[in-house]
Amino acid sequence: MGKVKIIATLGPSSRDYNVIRKMIKEGVAGFRINCAHGDENTWIEYVKLVRDASSDLGKAIPLILDTPGPQVRSGDFQEFTVKQGDNVVISSNPGNDGGEKKIIIVPAKEFYTAASTGDIILYGDGEISFRVVNTGEDFVEVVVLNDGVVKPRKKVVIEGKEYPVAFPSEVDRRVFKFAGDVKATFVALSYVRSLKDVELAKDVLSRHGWMPGLIAKIETRSGFINMGEIIEVVDGVIVARGDLGLHFPLEKLPLIQKEIVREAIKHGKTVIIATEILESMVNNPRPSRSDVVDLYNSVGDLVDAVLFTNETAIGKYPVEVVRWTRRIIEAAESELSRALISEYRGAIKAMNLLDKYVQGLVLLAESLGGTIVGYSKTGRMPTLVSKYRPQIKVYIGVSNRFLAEKLSIKYGLEITDMSQAIQDNLEKEYEVGVEKLVETLVKQNYLRPGDIVVETYAKPQTSIHEIRIRQII
Amino acid sequence: MGKVKIIATLGPSSRDYNVIRKMIKEGVAGFRINCAHGDENTWIEYVKLVRDASSDLGKAIPLILDTPGPQVRSGDFQEFTVKQGDNVVISSNPGNDGGEKKIIIVPAKEFYTAASTGDIILYGDGEISFRVVNTGEDFVEVVVLNDGVVKPRKKVVIEGKEYPVAFPSEVDRRVFKFAGDVKATFVALSYVRSLKDVELAKDVLSRHGWMPGLIAKIETRSGFINMGEIIEVVDGVIVARGDLGLHFPLEKLPLIQKEIVREAIKHGKTVIIATEILESMVNNPRPSRSDVVDLYNSVGDLVDAVLFTNETAIGKYPVEVVRWTRRIIEAAESELSRALISEYRGAIKAMNLLDKYVQGLVLLAESLGGTIVGYSKTGRMPTLVSKYRPQIKVYIGVSNRFLAEKLSIKYGLEITDMSQAIQDNLEKEYEVGVEKLVETLVKQNYLRPGDIVVETYAKPQTSIHEIRIRQII
Amino acid sequence: MGKVKIIATLGPSSRDYNVIRKMIKEGVAGFRINCAHGDENTWIEYVKLVRDASSDLGKAIPLILDTPGPQVRSGDFQEFTVKQGDNVVISSNPGNDGGEKKIIIVPAKEFYTAASTGDIILYGDGEISFRVVNTGEDFVEVVVLNDGVVKPRKKVVIEGKEYPVAFPSEVDRRVFKFAGDVKATFVALSYVRSLKDVELAKDVLSRHGWMPGLIAKIETRSGFINMGEIIEVVDGVIVARGDLGLHFPLEKLPLIQKEIVREAIKHGKTVIIATEILESMVNNPRPSRSDVVDLYNSVGDLVDAVLFTNETAIGKYPVEVVRWTRRIIEAAESELSRALISEYRGAIKAMNLLDKYVQGLVLLAESLGGTIVGYSKTGRMPTLVSKYRPQIKVYIGVSNRFLAEKLSIKYGLEITDMSQAIQDNLEKEYEVGVEKLVETLVKQNYLRPGDIVVETYAKPQTSIHEIRIRQII
Amino acid sequence: MGKVKIIATLGPSSRDYNVIRKMIKEGVAGFRINCAHGDENTWIEYVKLVRDASSDLGKAIPLILDTPGPQVRSGDFQEFTVKQGDNVVISSNPGNDGGEKKIIIVPAKEFYTAASTGDIILYGDGEISFRVVNTGEDFVEVVVLNDGVVKPRKKVVIEGKEYPVAFPSEVDRRVFKFAGDVKATFVALSYVRSLKDVELAKDVLSRHGWMPGLIAKIETRSGFINMGEIIEVVDGVIVARGDLGLHFPLEKLPLIQKEIVREAIKHGKTVIIATEILESMVNNPRPSRSDVVDLYNSVGDLVDAVLFTNETAIGKYPVEVVRWTRRIIEAAESELSRALISEYRGAIKAMNLLDKYVQGLVLLAESLGGTIVGYSKTGRMPTLVSKYRPQIKVYIGVSNRFLAEKLSIKYGLEITDMSQAIQDNLEKEYEVGVEKLVETLVKQNYLRPGDIVVETYAKPQTSIHEIRIRQII
Repeated sequence: MGKVKIIATLGPSSRDYNVIRKMIKEGVAGFRINCAHGDENTWIEYVKLVRDASSDLGKAIPLILDTPGPQVRSGDFQEFTVKQGDNVVISSNPGNDGGEKKIIIVPAKEFYTAASTGDIILYGDGEISFRVVNTGEDFVEVVVLNDGVVKPRKKVVIEGKEYPVAFPSEVDRRVFKFAGDVKATFVALSYVRSLKDVELAKDVLSRHGWMPGLIAKIETRSGFINMGEIIEVVDGVIVARGDLGLHFPLEKLPLIQKEIVREAIKHGKTVIIATEILESMVNNPRPSRSDVVDLYNSVGDLVDAVLFTNETAIGKYPVEVVRWTRRIIEAAESELSRALISEYRGAIKAMNLLDKYVQGLVLLAESLGGTIVGYSKTGRMPTLVSKYRPQIKVYIGVSNRFLAEKLSIKYGLEITDMSQAIQDNLEKEYEVGVEKLVETLVKQNYLRPGDIVVETYAKPQTSIHEIRIRQII
Repeated sequence: MGKVKIIATLGPSSRDYNVIRKMIKEGVAGFRINCAHGDENTWIEYVKLVRDASSDLGKAIPLILDTPGPQVRSGDFQEFTVKQGDNVVISSNPGNDGGEKKIIIVPAKEFYTAASTGDIILYGDGEISFRVVNTGEDFVEVVVLNDGVVKPRKKVVIEGKEYPVAFPSEVDRRVFKFAGDVKATFVALSYVRSLKDVELAKDVLSRHGWMPGLIAKIETRSGFINMGEIIEVVDGVIVARGDLGLHFPLEKLPLIQKEIVREAIKHGKTVIIATEILESMVNNPRPSRSDVVDLYNSVGDLVDAVLFTNETAIGKYPVEVVRWTRRIIEAAESELSRALISEYRGAIKAMNLLDKYVQGLVLLAESLGGTIVGYSKTGRMPTLVSKYRPQIKVYIGVSNRFLAEKLSIKYGLEITDMSQAIQDNLEKEYEVGVEKLVETLVKQNYLRPGDIVVETYAKPQTSIHEIRIRQII
Repeated sequence: MGKVKIIATLGPSSRDYNVIRKMIKEGVAGFRINCAHGDENTWIEYVKLVRDASSDLGKAIPLILDTPGPQVRSGDFQEFTVKQGDNVVISSNPGNDGGEKKIIIVPAKEFYTAASTGDIILYGDGEISFRVVNTGEDFVEVVVLNDGVVKPRKKVVIEGKEYPVAFPSEVDRRVFKFAGDVKATFVALSYVRSLKDVELAKDVLSRHGWMPGLIAKIETRSGFINMGEIIEVVDGVIVARGDLGLHFPLEKLPLIQKEIVREAIKHGKTVIIATEILESMVNNPRPSRSDVVDLYNSVGDLVDAVLFTNETAIGKYPVEVVRWTRRIIEAAESELSRALISEYRGAIKAMNLLDKYVQGLVLLAESLGGTIVGYSKTGRMPTLVSKYRPQIKVYIGVSNRFLAEKLSIKYGLEITDMSQAIQDNLEKEYEVGVEKLVETLVKQNYLRPGDIVVETYAKPQTSIHEIRIRQII
Repeated sequence: MGKVKIIATLGPSSRDYNVIRKMIKEGVAGFRINCAHGDENTWIEYVKLVRDASSDLGKAIPLILDTPGPQVRSGDFQEFTVKQGDNVVISSNPGNDGGEKKIIIVPAKEFYTAASTGDIILYGDGEISFRVVNTGEDFVEVVVLNDGVVKPRKKVVIEGKEYPVAFPSEVDRRVFKFAGDVKATFVALSYVRSLKDVELAKDVLSRHGWMPGLIAKIETRSGFINMGEIIEVVDGVIVARGDLGLHFPLEKLPLIQKEIVREAIKHGKTVIIATEILESMVNNPRPSRSDVVDLYNSVGDLVDAVLFTNETAIGKYPVEVVRWTRRIIEAAESELSRALISEYRGAIKAMNLLDKYVQGLVLLAESLGGTIVGYSKTGRMPTLVSKYRPQIKVYIGVSNRFLAEKLSIKYGLEITDMSQAIQDNLEKEYEVGVEKLVETLVKQNYLRPGDIVVETYAKPQTSIHEIRIRQII
């Protein structure tokens, strides 16, 4: 497997035990459930499918529940075709049409408050755009800027504006409760605008007796501007290229993406690139050349993971998407330059003793061309190892399944849940954890005679850390 | 306009004076006619359209006639749908079917000679693939590897193999003749395998009394392996990502692309990236996020030009493609790092005195934050200026239209045909050429009071070159 | 000749026409007269010797009159030997000894005001040191810290203290007047402490109707701390290692030297390293290994010049000193790394248009491997050329002798006084100046067939600068 | 103490228990006995003085016996003064002078065989030079090239020539035997010309039942040309600047010095710079400015040690020399740039597993800002640690005194002989060695609460190496 992790969004195309199982075998390290769609019954089915498949394969696979966030979407109506220059009405009221005009139902009041004459409205993922020519209390008249089909239940964004909606939304709250019910690994917060939004979410989440990992989606102007304070208080961020491309000029997206990645890395937090990674594979079994090159280059950005949306949710080739991704990642990683890694590391700072220890550990293991094997109860050590983007193999055993899931989406880490292996030796769990993990790796041929193993024993609450270097015989 | 040039392929979507005119105004610097399609009447119509529009706009716009090359294509038959696992016959003979089996007509004998059991056949641009299960003298039985629609008149490639076909093909020869008839700027040679192929093409071309610029398409294993010797004898190369992606594992494409670019740059030849640049815009008015990022990053590769195929030939939004490309290029160029330019220049060497002179000229102009204005009769000086990837504006006047067209696709050059302006002053054409060009630029507001102009007078056959630095008052 | 210039102090060893003539032929680019010694008659003799020799050799050789500055020196007394632990009295009054104690006469009142018990007193160039054990109004009792001979008329420094003496001193004023009388090229200001000191000096100098170039000697703590403001208002600085080594711990000297050099370079001012360059050659015809290595390395610091003191003033081998220096400089320059030059240039900034022009000119000439030939009336252009530490030959003709002398100590410039050559063509002096200079260089074999000449015409008060590149036939 | 070690040559000035004791306390890490002078009685006295002082101070101080090598020296005669232009005779026979001519007695036949008319003869360390004007079987007539005093028993070198003398010389053999008698730490081989010379020396040495460390002095053209093969088979090299400056043009010395240093470092061997380091301190209690700067810069060359000759052997201030050297080294080391260290390390390669382990260990310790504490029986691990020029403190305990002495001149290592501490725990000597060393360091205040200790256990003949990181409480 490559060092950059693959996360797939579940959807109709992947709502199948065998498909999910194949995706895991091909390299998926985590799944996302898009809670903007479906209901709890659907979600619970996805959870069960992933848990079954991951259990059967003996892998810890995290689940990310993605909240819809406080967004404005169109309601239910019959889809219709538009041509450039057409006049269309957007209204909260299906009735004020005499049946003559084409009407897009948008139930949210905030929309009508925010829209002004001259505004550009981006519909869906931007596939159709309108210019506002007239506004009323509960309607807006627009002219169509390009041909297309207007479908119901789509996102409605006013370019450069943000709706003053409450955070979290009603659906978000339901997702939070559901996260507690199923003990989800992560909750992803959509349209986070500031530190305060994250705190509000945490507050609600804490009432359900389960605190999942938190991932903030950076996707609006506010979110981008405040990303520093947001990143501080979450486990990771998603560079949500879909909405970023609506809120910023598309041609600025590459720069914005790089800046978010850099900020997350500086804070040692997980960073995930999302949306339109291999979009060409929604309908094709092979990616377009530009998609291949884009994915290849993003490996050089040293992100933790790439997250597929349409490709695996509604695309025809969910398994092939994963297979191609793995091949491209591995090809790119085999060409990664030493200079790039050095530059990356030059930009981050070791913050404390454990951090410095880990930095040295990684350098030591790389000098030796060795494999790091470690054991962790808190996740601090492996998080730091991943932060340094190790260019050697890293296997980490952990004390419980939730921790295993949380760490599995991080760059370069291969995580194993050792809870069973250590249960009878809790007083020596570090020694036993590492020993048994090495045994397993040897058995599974991941470690072979002649290989150098760099074992790390970074026990919390002691002033002694040990490293043992040994050669597999 | 950006420094990376935009070349568009003509096709049904752009077979219109107004579309072509708009495309030029939005930034197209050259057009390609894909001579694998249409007949001479179509081609002649394209030539006329482009010449009319470019005349009206007062711009020198090159025409690239792209030969089909010695490729194997399917013939005419009714398109049909296939599913994974289906059995299909490929045959040169439509008759040996009793109407029961689905038959793909492939008339070329070379195909049946080359195909062996177990081979993978890529159809079209790779949208359908087959595995060979049986072979005969004039037929091949295959099993379908993915669902799709088999359309007629498509490319048929055997993965990792090259057909031993004659070069140039019959159609190629017709294109060569046509190039002479219309005095085309460039001919692009498809499936070039070696220096010998280029020489054969030159030989045939020379018989028609007109030697266009030559562009080699690097798209097969042989072409890639022999690119060094090929690049030496042509004016430029196209990185033909379409076929490269069929002849090499797709995940190797990014590396292969980089290697071809590097080699061309080392030789100071024009290098053009082609195929699936903004593929997502074939059907959408906005590019996908991955396409934006890919194009943005390729600006950092410092290629001379990007070449659109489907996007402008059969896509719905040919003008929007150009507009988006210009925006993305300009955004990327405004962020280009000094270090990248230095590294680039460190990799090329000045070969002779004129080359060293130009290198110094570019450094001088950059030091001054000035604009280079020059005049050229042979194209040697501006070719060298472009080779150094100047990060300041460069305006070059030239002595005739053909030269203007040839130089227009090169990185960073703004070319003006000065043949009229200098016709009465041929004995002082360098001085007059530069003077009148500066006048025009001032009139058109491209040069303004306070701007620094670096005028270069690199006359051939003299041992004196002059540079005049002056400030527009 | 090397690019780093050689300046020699005149003294008994070099008070001879033939010696001076030989020194110039071996590479001396300027002479210093140490006005702390001798009287006007001596000085005037030196001036005449240098002017005669330089006239005869057709070279413009600058004269630097070095002021003693407001220093405290011992007076006249019989030299005597001391041993570590001896008690000695320093007094302004020779009489208060009963003939029993050894007395050092120091007439300056400031000394007794400044000295406190426990102070370390450095005598001469630090060859003997004392610790103060008792102080009175006009005497100080000290204990000797090392064996030695106490000679009269030596510098008396209290470590870490500066005397509150008036600037300029009486002798300084005499030197200033003398500078006007003989039209000296430079006056060097000793013990400059701040911008105010320089301004006081300028004020006095201006009264004599002749403003020589000004060189500030950085040699005390105040001078070092205020070097930024001092450097701004002078033509150059001397890193006076002799006194710096008394006012700072000797082991800090290398760092202090580097910082002064860096500051001067940043301001584009001449910087000269002085004192104990080849000290070992005072008594030996060959330098010590450490002296060779030190001088060799200082070439890598890209200073403008090295200044000899004892070596050429009182040493036995003044001519050999110059000869060795030239050999060592040339050896070091032939090994100078490209990286070092780049780093150097990265640290300076072009301040205005002429500056940028010159930066580009140097890069252009280096690209071409050419020789810069130019003409200057103001010295601005060649000063800027030198600032970029050109790694090709630079020949500059100037309009008068004084300017020729001023520029001759700058890095990498070969200066010729063209006043005679241009006198009949003053309206075209730039063109004629460059043309005649090239002619001369060809005649003298400094330029040979095949050489590239980069002629620069940077006329003040025009908005046009020209560069002509030509090859000598 | 600094990381660069100080080695002092013994001589009349330091033939005293108290002086030697003070020198050790000020930082001398090793002593050299120049066996070109004195007889065995003198040598034995030096050995005893050093052993007594080092025992009393509890330090392992190596002794280097420096052989004279196969050199040609003048014999005994009355010293006399010469002036440039004088005629002098060199002869093996004092009698062939009628008392009129000045005669230099040179007893070696090889001299007369080698000398030809026109040769330059360098006398002593080059302080006087002659040109040969006539030659005979046992005499040579020369003309004096500079004034000076010709003293007896000095080296006589013909510039650019090497005498065809046997290696090792008679005196060398006596030194070898003496080395065995007193169990000297090192023998330094003078005028080594090739691998063969070293092998001859080893052969003779081996007969005396004691194999000291071997140091080759690189000082002739042959030695320089063959340094690659020589360095391979010795423990270290001395850059003998004295003779190098006679056999090569002096201005080439800095480059030659750098090349020898680079070659030694590439092979991981000890490299020592010798001769005229602080030559100015032979007669002065303070070093000259150029000497300070030279020594300061040589710290940046990352040599293992500097070796004083005249300064401590016959100079007036042997203790002050050491004190100044330590101050200058410490000042220079505090300014050492990270970039320089990286460049240094980039030039060496880890050769095997232990080497890679040590490389990683150093990086780890530097990340932590920790102190390496280790134990060694073979010297391999600390030799490798030193090779990486660690920029943190390194304390190594070793199993015997001879090993302690051998390692003490290496860059950055503080060595302690632990033979007594471990004698009762030989089966656990590594664990006990490290533990007791840490205890001692804590007791002596070299380690303090809060300090990070990086303990290394690199036991030979096991496949497990351990590192323990702990914080002193």
